[in-house]
Amino acid sequence: MEQRVSLITLGVADLPRSRSFYESLGWHGQEVEQTVFFQTGGSAVVLWSRAALAEDCGIAEAGAGGSAAAPDGFGGLALALNVRSRGEVDEALAVATSAGARITRPAGETFYGGYAGCFTDPDGHVWEIAYNPGFPIGPDGSITIPDFGTA
Amino acid sequence: MEQRVSLITLGVADLPRSRSFYESLGWHGQEVEQTVFFQTGGSAVVLWSRAALAEDCGIAEAGAGGSAAAPDGFGGLALALNVRSRGEVDEALAVATSAGARITRPAGETFYGGYAGCFTDPDGHVWEIAYNPGFPIGPDGSITIPDFGTA
Repeated sequence: MEQRVSLITLGVADLPRSRSFYESLGWHGQEVEQTVFFQTGGSAVVLWSRAALAEDCGIAEAGAGGSAAAPDGFGGLALALNVRSRGEVDEALAVATSAGARITRPAGETFYGGYAGCFTDPDGHVWEIAYNPGFPIGPDGSITIPDFGTA
Repeated sequence: MEQRVSLITLGVADLPRSRSFYESLGWHGQEVEQTVFFQTGGSAVVLWSRAALAEDCGIAEAGAGGSAAAPDGFGGLALALNVRSRGEVDEALAVATSAGARITRPAGETFYGGYAGCFTDPDGHVWEIAYNPGFPIGPDGSITIPDFGTA
């Protein structure tokens, strides 16, 4: 599994509030389908509904509202490693399984035409391994959020 | 506040276990003073005691053991933006305060000869703004973990 981080997705209770907060810091994001993407160097910070994030990661969320923590062990945040093919998703999840990760969502097709699965590390930190043909990956592993025309 | 992420620090219950896990994924880290640094492109993933991380961020940790979540709202993870001077730390924290952030640790000198402070976003996600003269920042904002000679 490559030693990179592509996306840092922050689960949020109120997307407009959170987008406004980060834009007040001087950041500029693009909103697409109730998700806000901020390019951060070769990675991106993403704001997305905490409940949707938990469900997408295969984590049973215990309804902690706007808090970053939940009783079931979900920290309200997921890291993603974007890879270049479906096969690399399967390979990375196999390596993670061998390393003792808990697979919380087996690899499968995604709504955006990609392929992804999720696991948690020994402390419950969530990783998604994703093949997303819409987010180009450079030779150095940097990802680029495309121009959605919504900035 | 620059639109970047320098460090992603994962709070862990058992550092050797977590280091072993990430190295089983194929990653290579350097351990210094019970902290493990993995260079990830222009950023780094860091493993550190969850309790130490919470205390360092000024978060009251409610003793959730090895879980990524805690009842008090700490997700067991902190993001850091490394900046180029003490003045930039103060500026970023002032901007965050104006944006509605909660300052969890006011800016101050750090044990590593730097200067840093922490805040939480509207959902409790933790950010540290740090000036660390030991971690060089490139023109594009990338940070480089130095060779500690412990790899």
